[in-house]
Amino acid sequence: MPSEQTVQLDRLTAFIREALTVLGLPPADAFTVAALMAEADLQGSDGHGVTRLPQYARRIKAGGFNVRPDIKVVRDHPGTALIDGDNGMGHLVMKRAAEMAIEKARNTGIAWVNSQFSNHAGPASLYASMPLAHDMIGLYFAVGNANHLPPWGGLDMLLSTNPVAAAVPAGKERAIVLDMATTVAAYGKVKTKALRGETMPEGWMIDRNGQPLTDPKRADEGMLLPLGGMEAGYKGYGLALIIGLLAGTLGGAAMGRDVIDFNRDDDSVTNTGQAIAVINVAAFGDVDVFKSSVDRLIGDLRNSSRMPGVDRIYVPGERSHETRERRRRDGIPIAPALMRGLDKLAAELGIACLIQEI
Amino acid sequence: MPSEQTVQLDRLTAFIREALTVLGLPPADAFTVAALMAEADLQGSDGHGVTRLPQYARRIKAGGFNVRPDIKVVRDHPGTALIDGDNGMGHLVMKRAAEMAIEKARNTGIAWVNSQFSNHAGPASLYASMPLAHDMIGLYFAVGNANHLPPWGGLDMLLSTNPVAAAVPAGKERAIVLDMATTVAAYGKVKTKALRGETMPEGWMIDRNGQPLTDPKRADEGMLLPLGGMEAGYKGYGLALIIGLLAGTLGGAAMGRDVIDFNRDDDSVTNTGQAIAVINVAAFGDVDVFKSSVDRLIGDLRNSSRMPGVDRIYVPGERSHETRERRRRDGIPIAPALMRGLDKLAAELGIACLIQEI
Repeated sequence: MPSEQTVQLDRLTAFIREALTVLGLPPADAFTVAALMAEADLQGSDGHGVTRLPQYARRIKAGGFNVRPDIKVVRDHPGTALIDGDNGMGHLVMKRAAEMAIEKARNTGIAWVNSQFSNHAGPASLYASMPLAHDMIGLYFAVGNANHLPPWGGLDMLLSTNPVAAAVPAGKERAIVLDMATTVAAYGKVKTKALRGETMPEGWMIDRNGQPLTDPKRADEGMLLPLGGMEAGYKGYGLALIIGLLAGTLGGAAMGRDVIDFNRDDDSVTNTGQAIAVINVAAFGDVDVFKSSVDRLIGDLRNSSRMPGVDRIYVPGERSHETRERRRRDGIPIAPALMRGLDKLAAELGIACLIQEI
Repeated sequence: MPSEQTVQLDRLTAFIREALTVLGLPPADAFTVAALMAEADLQGSDGHGVTRLPQYARRIKAGGFNVRPDIKVVRDHPGTALIDGDNGMGHLVMKRAAEMAIEKARNTGIAWVNSQFSNHAGPASLYASMPLAHDMIGLYFAVGNANHLPPWGGLDMLLSTNPVAAAVPAGKERAIVLDMATTVAAYGKVKTKALRGETMPEGWMIDRNGQPLTDPKRADEGMLLPLGGMEAGYKGYGLALIIGLLAGTLGGAAMGRDVIDFNRDDDSVTNTGQAIAVINVAAFGDVDVFKSSVDRLIGDLRNSSRMPGVDRIYVPGERSHETRERRRRDGIPIAPALMRGLDKLAAELGIACLIQEI
């Protein structure tokens, strides 16, 4: 028996959809969330896909998610909107926000939609990439769902790893897609190191005396370092703060001390905030000329001289594009521990396991 | 005689205005540029203020700036515009862009204006801060005027230190203003270290073998490290790339290999691109509620626990606010070498020196 089993995208989507339906989501909503979660796994955002399903299920059972939310627009202007997610799953809220921003940007050239009373929505790149099919640029900002970052020089973790994503359409090349936390390492990477019994590199975390912390089992005693690390971490701190203001405070969502650690709390309303901006390339010039310029730039970067020992120069998003193609062909790997968790969940919900024994 | 002389804001503005007028700018334009350059010095952005005047003068004399530009809107949508700066000074172009974006955001909630055929415009924070007086948030992105950054793993410097600035209004507190290059250190900091005969910290630059470069006199042999440094520099590379796409490529301005090093070239049209986004806070909710939330967040950050040895926790922009107040009161210091350069320029232009001997 292989140590790591794989599953096809369609099967993974169907499994998540069935689980969410049994948990009480309307069929259409269950499919929307399932498709986005499976897409996260397909593109290699393993920390944001089906691995979250047991936690989501726990939260739904505890009443921490509203499975029948009345998602509505509470502020509306030609280029902006504020969407109240009614504590529904974040995927539903931000898919709606992205679609709304795309429609608005057709007329105004740019649109910006914030959410309030949303929830964890998976990888930022999913939503930033939605405008690509419309020849538009997407920018996405989110308040993370747990505070692991203090202000620069501080000890109190008042900020999250607030991510930013940007997706820019290309022509013959694939789109440029950046998706990054504003800390040196995302907290999920720390948890992965702990699970594997590995040591973290210096520069990911520090302890309360500012000394490097490299034992991931002691993560609770330390803090993530903001992007820039010891030399320039005040920049990462600044970015995390601005992103939190744009994605959280602007839309009346939680920020700073109001952020709820949804890994340790299954039932409080998180009032998660996110923001998506959509820029219509056609408002600034000929779309084909723009795409050709992006193609040329990608080629220049890719074909430029490399440092000794470097095999290849990547453009942001390339690894995800390749993972997506490989996993579409070969299936999505599911780690043994995750598979056990999903089998247990399937048994609880009375649905078929993700992979059925023959 | 003091080693460093100081000058009052009004006198500095008048000196720059007179110099630019003699160099051929219309009086109103000379005043606009002078006020913004002096404001840069006032807030402590010393690398972007009057220190640039000798270089600007050289470029004007060489025909590298158009002193009588026909700055015009070449694309216009309800929420966006593209401004052709006609190779005028960047300050003129981006002040116009900011004003236009503020007007548009009144109606649409958000606006985004790009420039093409613009030039170096001084510190990003100047323009990001213009919407503050209208209870709006400003975001500013620029393609830097010289490439000092290779793609991650590469040797060819195809990218600049592309800065981002963000300004968020507060209530009783002063606005949060972030202004940062997407490299660990801006190139100006390297030049300052060289002038002072000091060594750079490890982490600012690397040589062509990826080894730390700490001698600023050898800067030409090395490359800046992107924000994130050796651990996570691919993130800073990604940010620099996305900012360049938004500020340059989107508006048909120079990006990548087309960027001209304006420190070594006085007469080529740089086709510099910048972008400003303005978000109308009122489109998302009550402005006073928003400002109170920002105030509370600032207070939480400032009053949070500090690491051993840390005297104070700063919010982005606080140091600039304090410098502005101090220099408004005590005057703006002008380093001896800069003063000699300005005296020489004054003699060439036949105008009074910045500080006249009694």
